[in-house]
Amino acid sequence: MNDQDEQFMRRAISLAKRGQFTTSPNPNVGCVIVKDNKIVGESYHSKTGELHAEILAMKKSGEMIKGSTVYVTLEPCNHYGCTPPCVDELINAGISKIFVAMTDPNPQVSGKSLKKLRESGIQVVYGLLKKESEKINLGFIKRMKTGLPYITIKMAISIDGKIYSKFEECRWISSYRSRQDVQKIRARSSAILTTGSTVVADDPYLNVRWNDFTDELKHLYPKKKIRQPVRIVIDTRNEVHSEHKIVNIPGECWLFRKQTLQNDLNNTKEFSVKLDEEGKVDLIYIMKELAQKNINSILIESGSTFVSSLLTLNLFDEIILYIAPKILGNKAIGLTTISKKIELNKISKLQFVQFKKIGQDFRVILRKKEI
Amino acid sequence: MNDQDEQFMRRAISLAKRGQFTTSPNPNVGCVIVKDNKIVGESYHSKTGELHAEILAMKKSGEMIKGSTVYVTLEPCNHYGCTPPCVDELINAGISKIFVAMTDPNPQVSGKSLKKLRESGIQVVYGLLKKESEKINLGFIKRMKTGLPYITIKMAISIDGKIYSKFEECRWISSYRSRQDVQKIRARSSAILTTGSTVVADDPYLNVRWNDFTDELKHLYPKKKIRQPVRIVIDTRNEVHSEHKIVNIPGECWLFRKQTLQNDLNNTKEFSVKLDEEGKVDLIYIMKELAQKNINSILIESGSTFVSSLLTLNLFDEIILYIAPKILGNKAIGLTTISKKIELNKISKLQFVQFKKIGQDFRVILRKKEI
Repeated sequence: MNDQDEQFMRRAISLAKRGQFTTSPNPNVGCVIVKDNKIVGESYHSKTGELHAEILAMKKSGEMIKGSTVYVTLEPCNHYGCTPPCVDELINAGISKIFVAMTDPNPQVSGKSLKKLRESGIQVVYGLLKKESEKINLGFIKRMKTGLPYITIKMAISIDGKIYSKFEECRWISSYRSRQDVQKIRARSSAILTTGSTVVADDPYLNVRWNDFTDELKHLYPKKKIRQPVRIVIDTRNEVHSEHKIVNIPGECWLFRKQTLQNDLNNTKEFSVKLDEEGKVDLIYIMKELAQKNINSILIESGSTFVSSLLTLNLFDEIILYIAPKILGNKAIGLTTISKKIELNKISKLQFVQFKKIGQDFRVILRKKEI
Repeated sequence: MNDQDEQFMRRAISLAKRGQFTTSPNPNVGCVIVKDNKIVGESYHSKTGELHAEILAMKKSGEMIKGSTVYVTLEPCNHYGCTPPCVDELINAGISKIFVAMTDPNPQVSGKSLKKLRESGIQVVYGLLKKESEKINLGFIKRMKTGLPYITIKMAISIDGKIYSKFEECRWISSYRSRQDVQKIRARSSAILTTGSTVVADDPYLNVRWNDFTDELKHLYPKKKIRQPVRIVIDTRNEVHSEHKIVNIPGECWLFRKQTLQNDLNNTKEFSVKLDEEGKVDLIYIMKELAQKNINSILIESGSTFVSSLLTLNLFDEIILYIAPKILGNKAIGLTTISKKIELNKISKLQFVQFKKIGQDFRVILRKKEI
């Protein structure tokens, strides 16, 4: 491994990122093929049903594929899905060396292609830029390894930790620039989840709005490619009705209800919730169901009651806070509704992993503290 | 003005900063003297009663002072204080050119020395790195221009905007690294102000503790030079007593009381408060009194009730928040006690001016929004 190898793998990662808005439920994968220190073919996976990164890059390489070195961000597949297994195609093409950043996170198949490649006499180098490669597939990895989606809680708060005040004239605490940033985070998510109470209170769209993208994002993610994340509502009291925006726009909307009403609404699917021993909706069950339905990553956009349930269940991976330079006062609604010591103690220790100034606000990202 | 002039002025500013912990109530001033493009003398003001930056730099220049160019961060004084007027010394020394970053902020004297220098035939260039120069004297400028000190509110909060929870085992919300940073901010302040209630609740020292400095700060600010900021307590109910730490450590402690008890405590001075029309303690009067007593800058370290009073009076210049990656829950004590719309509307619009990761926390600085 040398600097040039790292450079080619970085290129493969940056190609993989081009698929970040559209590959769900598939992973982001980038591939670079090199011969005599020159890139002869490169590509990325863009969407379910379309060709894998390796196959596209091989097509571009043409005859140069023989004896080449391949840089791929994720272990090539070894199964028939929508496309034939990449690992066989690579072997048959006569490549001589392959760099693989990370193995397939599915424990059932992880490492199998690496073994097959090695057995066919190809030199396999594993682990180059592994961490960077994992970062672009947090949702896919979480689902494959744990059977749960990667859960991101998003909140906009004032410096005194409030999410809503009836005194504020503006509906939003955070600025337009922050809301543009949220559009990017929505666009990356497999699904956006809220509750019936939030639908009743705010009547949100919870969709990806191309017109609200920053110019940079418009360039990265053209309008014609838009994939709408699934909109999920935990609607235990059947509050969502046919007038709500969330059921009247393109894209899927899934309702989780105690009592299903056999699809009384357009564009929606209904699912039954399960109650836990205390008679409360079993949120872990819902999340497992969503992973089963190929949801890699979920963005939570709801009020503090639901967020508090997720926090105390530790049913989250990331908290994104947009902090606005405002004071909303001590009667405003706060970030959580948690008041008992026993509940607070259930929340994992947190750590800040990122800070960014966005317009007049700033954004912080927290994850569970690594022990 | 060219790049080299800017470079010499930057040097003067960086020299000025060396006095930041000790010059109060005097301003920070740095001076660089240049002949034939070489620095022949430089210095800074370090403490009341000691020589001014210009005089020290001139002494170092010796004979080279004749025909030299002087770079000074603040307009030279033109009055007899503890030392003779620098402006006359500069004229007598025969300098040929002077760069002055900012004028004396005192409206009574501002510009007078520049005029005198010009009239004596010296070439005067005014305004080079003016903003940078003002930044190192926020307190002095505020006092001179407005008759009020520069007021900084410091709080440590959780991500849900809470400052205290009885459930937290640790007395501090923020980490040791943040508290080390607070030591630096205390060390820069002319005074630290709190209330009788905070003294009763926390029994704080509110002093500068050299042992808690970072290594970097220990190097910048040697132990033997320590200046203790004045400790000020708004003690309207006469709650501070002889056992409290704040009155039993080196340095001055000033108590503002409704009823003065004629100095019943060691090391303390008592002052009377004034009541406003509603019978409340007139905080603006106290702040004006403090400016009269040469307090340039005040660091507020108190609870949310007092902070809320300052916020609604707009009696602050800066808010420094140390945000810890914790959730304290909705029963914990919040940043403010303000609940009425009319009170919230009195607070100036705010803006973030700085962000910094400090250990596991992060620090943000807010100021009033420039309109």
